[in-house]
Amino acid sequence: MAQLFYGSFIYSKSLDELEYLHDAAILVDNSGKIVAVEKECGTKEKVVEKFVNQKLVPGDVKVHETVEGQFFFPGFIDTHLHASQYPNVGIFGKSTLLDWLNTYTFPLEASLADPVKARKVYGRVIRKTLSHGTTCAAYYATIDVASTNLLADLCLAAGQRALVGRVCMDQLSPAYYRDETPEAALASTRESIAYIQKIDPGMEIVRPVITPRFAPSCSAPLMKGLGKLAAEMPTLPIQTHISENKNEIALVRELFPPSSTGAKQDSYAGVYDACGLLTDRTILAHAVHLSEDEADLIASRKAKVSHCPCSNSAITSGAARVRWLLEKGVTCGLGTDMSGGYSPSVLEAARLAALVSRHVAMGGDERAKLSVEEVLYLATKGGAEVVGLEAKVGAFEAGMEWDAQLIGLGIVDSEGGVTGVSGGLEEDGNVDVFGWESWQDQVAKWVYNGDDRNTKKVWVRGRLVHERK
Amino acid sequence: MAQLFYGSFIYSKSLDELEYLHDAAILVDNSGKIVAVEKECGTKEKVVEKFVNQKLVPGDVKVHETVEGQFFFPGFIDTHLHASQYPNVGIFGKSTLLDWLNTYTFPLEASLADPVKARKVYGRVIRKTLSHGTTCAAYYATIDVASTNLLADLCLAAGQRALVGRVCMDQLSPAYYRDETPEAALASTRESIAYIQKIDPGMEIVRPVITPRFAPSCSAPLMKGLGKLAAEMPTLPIQTHISENKNEIALVRELFPPSSTGAKQDSYAGVYDACGLLTDRTILAHAVHLSEDEADLIASRKAKVSHCPCSNSAITSGAARVRWLLEKGVTCGLGTDMSGGYSPSVLEAARLAALVSRHVAMGGDERAKLSVEEVLYLATKGGAEVVGLEAKVGAFEAGMEWDAQLIGLGIVDSEGGVTGVSGGLEEDGNVDVFGWESWQDQVAKWVYNGDDRNTKKVWVRGRLVHERK
Repeated sequence: MAQLFYGSFIYSKSLDELEYLHDAAILVDNSGKIVAVEKECGTKEKVVEKFVNQKLVPGDVKVHETVEGQFFFPGFIDTHLHASQYPNVGIFGKSTLLDWLNTYTFPLEASLADPVKARKVYGRVIRKTLSHGTTCAAYYATIDVASTNLLADLCLAAGQRALVGRVCMDQLSPAYYRDETPEAALASTRESIAYIQKIDPGMEIVRPVITPRFAPSCSAPLMKGLGKLAAEMPTLPIQTHISENKNEIALVRELFPPSSTGAKQDSYAGVYDACGLLTDRTILAHAVHLSEDEADLIASRKAKVSHCPCSNSAITSGAARVRWLLEKGVTCGLGTDMSGGYSPSVLEAARLAALVSRHVAMGGDERAKLSVEEVLYLATKGGAEVVGLEAKVGAFEAGMEWDAQLIGLGIVDSEGGVTGVSGGLEEDGNVDVFGWESWQDQVAKWVYNGDDRNTKKVWVRGRLVHERK
Repeated sequence: MAQLFYGSFIYSKSLDELEYLHDAAILVDNSGKIVAVEKECGTKEKVVEKFVNQKLVPGDVKVHETVEGQFFFPGFIDTHLHASQYPNVGIFGKSTLLDWLNTYTFPLEASLADPVKARKVYGRVIRKTLSHGTTCAAYYATIDVASTNLLADLCLAAGQRALVGRVCMDQLSPAYYRDETPEAALASTRESIAYIQKIDPGMEIVRPVITPRFAPSCSAPLMKGLGKLAAEMPTLPIQTHISENKNEIALVRELFPPSSTGAKQDSYAGVYDACGLLTDRTILAHAVHLSEDEADLIASRKAKVSHCPCSNSAITSGAARVRWLLEKGVTCGLGTDMSGGYSPSVLEAARLAALVSRHVAMGGDERAKLSVEEVLYLATKGGAEVVGLEAKVGAFEAGMEWDAQLIGLGIVDSEGGVTGVSGGLEEDGNVDVFGWESWQDQVAKWVYNGDDRNTKKVWVRGRLVHERK
């Protein structure tokens, strides 16, 4: 059935500006596509009558409308997370990247070859991220083909837009969790790609993604093989990690001298570039300690960056300079990077992107600070560009698809209680609106104190995929 | 009625160690005092029988018990927050301290002279902080005596332990929000102190606190007058701000040359010391940019520090060196510092204390990192010492009072759903326990992803003051 959404809509117009529409309407056809966006169109009755008269869509139209304290917002794009690590969120102690991988991460990932365990973990991470408004997620699974394919099945069934990557890694990890040879890794990758393309031939919801874990885990032959595969399959995205931690960077320098790959630039980015992996379809997670030359190389290749502030602070990787990347013309989005990051929420990633940018600013460059508008752009439009879906999602425009969340805030009464917007719950989340705030201030309150309780409903391609009861 | 708590209990034994008790019991008498702590005492039936036979308390005993995924934890102590600024949480833009005060803070605080507005705001902040497990809060109100007294009334009625301070400020703020003279400020302070001591003569729940806002807002005569008042009333705590922001520090240096106060040390701490305000009852919020000499002076006076990581990052004040303070012997607790900080949650303050300590560590000193155990210590035992209540609250020991929270985590089922521990809610917060985690890991998960949904019940002095329905 077609759907008409009426009321308040907020979305990014540009990096530093939000569009606020009120008494507006968006018509979505039965395939989930936005047919019309009507601004300032008066009462709901007028809009309904107008759309009915115009007969823009065949058949009946279901009407949704916002009430006080509510607005529609584009779904969040999580441009980097490891579905397989979800049970470890919050468990990292005082570790940093390389010891964290060996202590916490590899044992858990390896254990998901058990399909019962994989179903439990993947089922949970999909529900959890949907409940936080993540309509699209770029997932790393594990090296296991069957459980990677299960993750794709579960995303498709739940209706969450997803990039699903079988992890490639043929060196340096423990023997119990490693591709045996580059050839075996490539064959397993092809197997998983073929499966995912079979279950969703149009790649409308799930897409395979070529996933070399990161350079230290991959031999040069494996990376070059994946680069060739990427060239052979030009509709597939690529995802990997770069320049997260200083010891990791030293390791890459040691493992991959330019002679080993034929790299023109002696840098981490240079290694990927030499292997055919630095493309305009490449999602690079972290990018914390890049040199000027590396960032320029990334910009020139039009590769994208997934900024993961929660992870970078939690496992003491460093503070990424997002403003600097943006000014170099590098497209950036946000990643939760579970479980280096502890939070499943892109809203929390946005909040922490703002905080980390302030820590960068404390170093002397006031301009580093990211505003509420900017972190929301990264969480939606920026993220859409990072995963190559900017024509479809990230904003509300005719021709795009309806990936959206209904946000509701709490209204404080005269005694300090709250009238919850969903079902009159007494305690309805942590965003309290007193009544005198501007819309800009309400959005800031949501960014800083909001959580999944404020995400009342979530749609992907017009399908309702989550609703708070 | 007396109460018996049975099951799992967790609390800080020392800065870096938590005590885990299972199948344990705590008996609380009808005045809220812990009469006995029994470790490893077998089944609930055995314990109940034992306590009944011993007749440790007269009359009936109500029994509370933890179920799977639950434990009792000491209530949190919020050592620094502005109740009057609560409606502004999340609203700070890219401002820093001095412009933030003029743009956002003073207008809101001044407006709370309206008792209707004050009731709405104070009512909300008390409910909100209680729901996050804050059993004791060190509040700044405003300069208005009547609404400061209202805050004390509301805390007493709600049963939240509170330090309530009328804010003293006789210079530099706008004319519409300033004490007219030092004498007027002192008279208003005495008036509010007398009122609060009248409504709770034993200062069991609410205590007045002498509150010079911060040096830039106070003339030397006002600060010296407050120092004398503090000497005259040796049971009252003192609270103020110190060394939050570099421009503020420069302003203090300009306003208070040593000759103006007779200070022996030309520093921000030296100003307070010269005015009789640097005592073992003094709570200093922030302490971000202290010099070695200042920190030594603070340590020698046994003054306490309220670390406010959320605020310090949000309004770009800096990253406080908590390890450095602790190693100098300075007692530290945590403050939400709303609304410089955006979050009402001490658990969020603990989480951000861990993250900010990692940003300090990125500067080179690995030892700066604070562990889960350490941030929980700051949130409870450390905080109790900061507010001078270490003999009563912050841990579970015989002779102390029952200020506690019942924490419940979610148990994930085989399909990725959750069995909520309270009433079987389908989505019960963001802490997911898969079943194989150690207790240490469960506590880490709570610290990093927990929120008010995990705080099922809250008691102060044995009285149930919050319960999630």
